[in-house]
Amino acid sequence: MAKDHTEYIEEEFTRDTAYIEDRIVAEPDGKYEWPVEPGRYRLAVAHACPWANRTLITRRLLGLEDAISMAIAGPVHDSDSWTFDLDPGEVDPVLGIPKLKDAYLKRFPDYPKGITVPAIVEVSSGRVVTNDFPQITLDFNTEWTAYHREGAPNLFPEEHRDEILEVADSFYEDINNGVYKCGFAGSQAAYEKAYTALWSRMDQLSERLETQRYLVGDTITEADVRLWVTLVRFDAVYHGHFKANRSKLTEMPVLWAYARDLFQTPGFGDTQDFQRIKEHYYATHLDINPTGVVPLGPDERVWATPHHREELGGSPFGDGTPPGPVAEGETVDPAHNRALALLS
Amino acid sequence: MAKDHTEYIEEEFTRDTAYIEDRIVAEPDGKYEWPVEPGRYRLAVAHACPWANRTLITRRLLGLEDAISMAIAGPVHDSDSWTFDLDPGEVDPVLGIPKLKDAYLKRFPDYPKGITVPAIVEVSSGRVVTNDFPQITLDFNTEWTAYHREGAPNLFPEEHRDEILEVADSFYEDINNGVYKCGFAGSQAAYEKAYTALWSRMDQLSERLETQRYLVGDTITEADVRLWVTLVRFDAVYHGHFKANRSKLTEMPVLWAYARDLFQTPGFGDTQDFQRIKEHYYATHLDINPTGVVPLGPDERVWATPHHREELGGSPFGDGTPPGPVAEGETVDPAHNRALALLS
Repeated sequence: MAKDHTEYIEEEFTRDTAYIEDRIVAEPDGKYEWPVEPGRYRLAVAHACPWANRTLITRRLLGLEDAISMAIAGPVHDSDSWTFDLDPGEVDPVLGIPKLKDAYLKRFPDYPKGITVPAIVEVSSGRVVTNDFPQITLDFNTEWTAYHREGAPNLFPEEHRDEILEVADSFYEDINNGVYKCGFAGSQAAYEKAYTALWSRMDQLSERLETQRYLVGDTITEADVRLWVTLVRFDAVYHGHFKANRSKLTEMPVLWAYARDLFQTPGFGDTQDFQRIKEHYYATHLDINPTGVVPLGPDERVWATPHHREELGGSPFGDGTPPGPVAEGETVDPAHNRALALLS
Repeated sequence: MAKDHTEYIEEEFTRDTAYIEDRIVAEPDGKYEWPVEPGRYRLAVAHACPWANRTLITRRLLGLEDAISMAIAGPVHDSDSWTFDLDPGEVDPVLGIPKLKDAYLKRFPDYPKGITVPAIVEVSSGRVVTNDFPQITLDFNTEWTAYHREGAPNLFPEEHRDEILEVADSFYEDINNGVYKCGFAGSQAAYEKAYTALWSRMDQLSERLETQRYLVGDTITEADVRLWVTLVRFDAVYHGHFKANRSKLTEMPVLWAYARDLFQTPGFGDTQDFQRIKEHYYATHLDINPTGVVPLGPDERVWATPHHREELGGSPFGDGTPPGPVAEGETVDPAHNRALALLS
């Protein structure tokens, strides 16, 4: 089954988080045997998926493009797997497979779980190494340091790690996963419970971010990456498709300014493909959108409007520098994100 | 079949408008034989339905409550008929029937069309007289004049009739019906065509209303009633459920101020039951919302915020006066429209 980690339309939505929990580490030991090694692995993503989006952003902020190549699945997966239907011949040019599922089965011939992105595949063997998305970005930050670009920011600084994980944990269930709980609720009661928790947490974060530019400390951290991937999808899909509709994000002044600030920071907005996001949610979840029609709205160009968050101080990359231009072959179709042209 | 005048999920949505085109007139002749007579007829409505909403507003503005009583169907109809499930014993207390369909069959035992509201029923015979909604409000205005309240406004003044009908015709297909064409489009192309026409017309009306308070002349007319019943439902149902999502109404400054101005005018906002509106659309159209979950958002209290349209001049009721309080038994549950308490 292809999944964006979801079990669709349950009374109360539960996310299957029994991942392949292997890790790629700088110093392999008895527990984790996959070594950091440039060129050895390929990161499989889809622009649609918020969990994959975390890895897209982090890889780019840290400058890991040359060390870890990227396979990009199309937005609409079938019931079987995410597929490489955007590539010539509908086959990933490096892994040589049409479906991400092939890499899962190469690792576990009877793999019983959902085929999810992000997933890291060992190129030579074609086997999935890990799909443990919360760990993947942490390891990009802490295990792949030898291959970070010059000026790479520290997104997971030692002195703030506890707080970063604590705040990220605080919004994971209610927001990152909470929007799915709203959308896939199989009963009115389950929906209302999820909706209430979602907005209560949104209000809490709005208050936190009223006087500080970023979630933890005064630079961008892993916590911001984790929150932002949900916020950037909010009005495009969660508001209508998932009924997370107390308001649009554009109607929440603090969170909207915070989200635009990051959007306009290199590494965030330039990884967004709104068309693929909408296609994925509206055309894949036919159990909640049977016609498969993909809405034309909203107009994403509002993401380019001034946010004034720089007045709060803070420094996006701390002692580091912004990443350069998006790597060749990885740029988003300008028609799928019309805000980018307004910012360049 | 119970219908809100819809044929669901067609390639391109078409509305069945082959109504029972009888009229109730002040001076019956060979063509129209139903005479205006207070107490003789009962108007069947549902708060959910925009076409019925026209009649609710007009009847109240003109003060026809004593002349024409009202049967109120519940928000969620089954595949057979709108039903009087809100009444004690789930039977309309005057007509003595559980389903509006019964009144249609009393008139035409083989009635083959959808069972729609609004419908006017002759109380003594229990037969539907007409369900021709565009004509019903015109006749309230021009045939029932002998029973208008003192101070009733002239919503269809002779000198503006052509313009009123012309402007109303201009937005009927693109807006009133256009939102349904968006929501029930069975193909991406049909949806995009409807969406484009809808927003083009919305922009046109926004421009028209930028410098004038009402659509035609400087008082409220039939044209305003016809546009407003769609606008008031926009963010509650059409934006998300029907994918009419270029923006929310709240994001269109002119139309939003115009719509709030009317909402805050006696006869408009006080006929709105947002809960029933949402329940109807989300729980009846299971072909586009299979879970039947009804969203909690958006918060309707924004309808009570200042609109400043009085600065444009105009006079809501011309030489007339506003209607008094809502008739006993016809008030909306305050929990279903929390804006009203803020205005009182």
